[in-house]
Amino acid sequence: MAITFKTIGIIGRVRNSGVKETLNALVNYLCESGVKVIIESETAESLTDSTLPTIARGELGKHCDLLIVVGGDGSLLNAAHAVVDHETPVLGINRGSLGFLTDILPTELDKIKSILQGEYKLEKRFLLSSHIELNGKLIGQGDALNEVAVIPNVVPHMLEFEIYIDDQFVCSQNSDGLIVATPTGSTAYALSGGGPILHPQLDAIVLVPMFPHTLSSRPIVIEANQRITIIISPNDSDSSARLTCDGQAYITTPANSRITIQKKTKQLHLIHPLDYNYYETLRSKLHWGKKLH
Amino acid sequence: MAITFKTIGIIGRVRNSGVKETLNALVNYLCESGVKVIIESETAESLTDSTLPTIARGELGKHCDLLIVVGGDGSLLNAAHAVVDHETPVLGINRGSLGFLTDILPTELDKIKSILQGEYKLEKRFLLSSHIELNGKLIGQGDALNEVAVIPNVVPHMLEFEIYIDDQFVCSQNSDGLIVATPTGSTAYALSGGGPILHPQLDAIVLVPMFPHTLSSRPIVIEANQRITIIISPNDSDSSARLTCDGQAYITTPANSRITIQKKTKQLHLIHPLDYNYYETLRSKLHWGKKLH
Amino acid sequence: MAITFKTIGIIGRVRNSGVKETLNALVNYLCESGVKVIIESETAESLTDSTLPTIARGELGKHCDLLIVVGGDGSLLNAAHAVVDHETPVLGINRGSLGFLTDILPTELDKIKSILQGEYKLEKRFLLSSHIELNGKLIGQGDALNEVAVIPNVVPHMLEFEIYIDDQFVCSQNSDGLIVATPTGSTAYALSGGGPILHPQLDAIVLVPMFPHTLSSRPIVIEANQRITIIISPNDSDSSARLTCDGQAYITTPANSRITIQKKTKQLHLIHPLDYNYYETLRSKLHWGKKLH
Amino acid sequence: MAITFKTIGIIGRVRNSGVKETLNALVNYLCESGVKVIIESETAESLTDSTLPTIARGELGKHCDLLIVVGGDGSLLNAAHAVVDHETPVLGINRGSLGFLTDILPTELDKIKSILQGEYKLEKRFLLSSHIELNGKLIGQGDALNEVAVIPNVVPHMLEFEIYIDDQFVCSQNSDGLIVATPTGSTAYALSGGGPILHPQLDAIVLVPMFPHTLSSRPIVIEANQRITIIISPNDSDSSARLTCDGQAYITTPANSRITIQKKTKQLHLIHPLDYNYYETLRSKLHWGKKLH
Repeated sequence: MAITFKTIGIIGRVRNSGVKETLNALVNYLCESGVKVIIESETAESLTDSTLPTIARGELGKHCDLLIVVGGDGSLLNAAHAVVDHETPVLGINRGSLGFLTDILPTELDKIKSILQGEYKLEKRFLLSSHIELNGKLIGQGDALNEVAVIPNVVPHMLEFEIYIDDQFVCSQNSDGLIVATPTGSTAYALSGGGPILHPQLDAIVLVPMFPHTLSSRPIVIEANQRITIIISPNDSDSSARLTCDGQAYITTPANSRITIQKKTKQLHLIHPLDYNYYETLRSKLHWGKKLH
Repeated sequence: MAITFKTIGIIGRVRNSGVKETLNALVNYLCESGVKVIIESETAESLTDSTLPTIARGELGKHCDLLIVVGGDGSLLNAAHAVVDHETPVLGINRGSLGFLTDILPTELDKIKSILQGEYKLEKRFLLSSHIELNGKLIGQGDALNEVAVIPNVVPHMLEFEIYIDDQFVCSQNSDGLIVATPTGSTAYALSGGGPILHPQLDAIVLVPMFPHTLSSRPIVIEANQRITIIISPNDSDSSARLTCDGQAYITTPANSRITIQKKTKQLHLIHPLDYNYYETLRSKLHWGKKLH
Repeated sequence: MAITFKTIGIIGRVRNSGVKETLNALVNYLCESGVKVIIESETAESLTDSTLPTIARGELGKHCDLLIVVGGDGSLLNAAHAVVDHETPVLGINRGSLGFLTDILPTELDKIKSILQGEYKLEKRFLLSSHIELNGKLIGQGDALNEVAVIPNVVPHMLEFEIYIDDQFVCSQNSDGLIVATPTGSTAYALSGGGPILHPQLDAIVLVPMFPHTLSSRPIVIEANQRITIIISPNDSDSSARLTCDGQAYITTPANSRITIQKKTKQLHLIHPLDYNYYETLRSKLHWGKKLH
Repeated sequence: MAITFKTIGIIGRVRNSGVKETLNALVNYLCESGVKVIIESETAESLTDSTLPTIARGELGKHCDLLIVVGGDGSLLNAAHAVVDHETPVLGINRGSLGFLTDILPTELDKIKSILQGEYKLEKRFLLSSHIELNGKLIGQGDALNEVAVIPNVVPHMLEFEIYIDDQFVCSQNSDGLIVATPTGSTAYALSGGGPILHPQLDAIVLVPMFPHTLSSRPIVIEANQRITIIISPNDSDSSARLTCDGQAYITTPANSRITIQKKTKQLHLIHPLDYNYYETLRSKLHWGKKLH
């Protein structure tokens, strides 16, 4: 069978010795398969084979047909940000237990062969784009695969803000913040915060209030193409709130900041082996009940 | 302006003296407006004007352009079942406080004039159809605007069942039951059970486990066109579980029963005045925060 | 060392073949240990050795120094009711996985030797007594080790009732019911219903609202010696609510019924092996995190 | 009737013009009643009458029989810290709506007359003392009337720590932190975080996990005289976690920090008017149902 993916980028979180081992095994396996392998520069430092071409993280998307990430869901999240603008397909090999995004185990490298030959499931996962304006001027922006969250800059501090959906006022809220999550993010931070699970293929966004003062606050699920606006209260001090995208970058949002959150046009192209089963991952990670024979 | 709705059916829960008063006022108002008014037979008994034509509940859909319900959300729910197969538009006049479905107050009868003249918002709300099979034979069926729920026949009794979505096994569950709710139902029973709020226009269904034995069980939101199958455990006694549609009809589901829940093709055509605002209803009913400053 | 317990009663849920096997092994083990063994009549039918003295369930408390229960937490709950008025010590041997009340495994019968010789932890667990009055007349009563619950007689049906604590009005509630649980019951039904875990030695009771209509309803924890009164609304139909003790017996509570719930004077004397560890049971059953490093 | 309280300290959060007005009215009222009035120094600046004696915040406890706080629950919380070591009785006058701790309204100053004459309810509320040790050395300490919380130093950051109760290992936890609340604090931050309500007179503490990674984590209620130890994971970076007492002071807790939390010996002596009703406050603040009929 013809090979679908010819140039494979490799990235991994190298702090972990298990990851290093898997990386080496993966590279060997791929080189023997006859595909071209490019290693992300930082990852390359931990590899045995120093003759392979390397590439800066920011260039991966442009030069690879497929990006393989070795690590956990967090590593894949990071890598996704690097290539999403090129919509490069991404595949995750999990070092430890099954992840929600990384569903090949190091012992299953043979599954990669089938994937290289085109036998895989392609799943598109949307991201959120956020923009922060103050007095009509853009002061920050960021993308998120899991969630955009408005949180206190210095905890503990209760925030006050207004929420609008498609310019319709929803409510004002006193809380520790607000999580705006994609279906992908619904099994991450938002789930710990009491949010529901959104099926990955549901075109929806969930707003989860964090420790709301009003006890009758509840998560709201809306269509993914609706635009969410959060306005930080003029009563809040200028250094009280910040915005975070996937729990990584963060931007201070002064009083009166206007945060706009929308579905991003470019999507993550996530590759799964053919036997991928979303519910199996859920059951395994959440200790849900198996089939009653 | 031309009158859009010419034949108006009227139905109300007559046990309440306030409803009777509103019904009489409404009928007078409509008769003066020159539209044809037909009264549901049981409702007619409580009206002063006994000269108006009456009609059986089951015939309302066929003979009316518009059905006006006087009562609370529960009354509108009932009436919706009567006319959904004809997709007759339904308008609700709430006696007491604002409802999620009934958003005209008795003091606002003048809003009806605009609606009769075609100035209204039409919102389609989908229902769920459920079928119960045992050994390949249909043993019951029902529609629900709010929710289909599998519950114990005699409480307290923990049920055991398997859940499938589009024939994919999701999990088995030991719980007091399962609520499968539409966006309309997401602010009703499912909300008390810990489910999220689904925006009325989101094409989705939420599954809410009731008092699940497994503490990591969570509500799941899926696309509305996915088919849910619930299989009652062979270990359950034959009289342990039942199915209820909108908390009204119920059907015993013996061990091994196979319950299929799907989006119904025919929808409820809900009429709102032009100033209808979903979020205002949420804020008012859930004591959420108003605009700041 | 002297033997502390000389007459041992045995009871087990005999439907299960594993239980039968454990029962036989236990009886052999005890007979060899030189203690007197009496078998509960129904249990005796499933034993190999038919020469042992038997006794009616209701007589166990009077004639035994120690009651050993083979089965799960549910079996121990049942047995506890039979002997609590004599405060006979009770020990549980769990067939399957660890239970909250039954913490010896069938493979650990040697632990029983130490217990017979007085090496054990004795833990007192209090029960709740409930009384139902209608128009000043007692219409029912019951004890519960886990919880007293007011629930609908026929589901689905929302109940309306008032709650008083030590004759102070707390609130009225529209809900599916109310769970009043002991610390022992706090890890049972009340936990599925969203209640907190109460440490077994905390002298407190928790009230957990079931699917409350008011979303800001929350569990309340009060001192165990406070008296809880629940008054069924006069608006409820006479057959709408019932009271259940430990999910077993139930009593219909007509409109205007006055339910009084108080700490019972007699307590369950629960026997644990010396290495018993409550938190280990919690961790194991709830998948909580183990020690780091 | 004799006057019970002779020297009254006054403290108020003066940023608010309503508070200023109430302060002046209160001072006039008290001066006319013939008691000695001392004003906290910072509060004095906003008063009209500049002839009254003033006193530093830290000296209030030593020199007053009664401290009157004008403001919300937050102001009373602050004032309580200032006088708890002298167990000086504290009374709260709330500017806005009813508080949980401040239950006299500015329109009810006459209630103060009865209180001065000894007609009041005295309620003792316990505090928590926390100590942080690193390598056996004390690195910080603090008291809390509401809650001690371990939270991220810089959000978002998931913490890892172990929990012990009376030196028994409970569990390790990955979460946004842990709230350890008194009954007084159970209706504050802990309630937003999903904790139960503890009756003010219950001698108990509740541990509420914040956004726990393990979904089966639940609040645990234990006896107030049990000692809680939290050990920050050696894997955490040295600047990841901090301790906060009543959401005010905070102390960085490096990796391996050992936090001990215990009931403080000295208690807050809270004064209520005779018609004080805890449940009425709950009902009013949480929109719970009133008496039926």
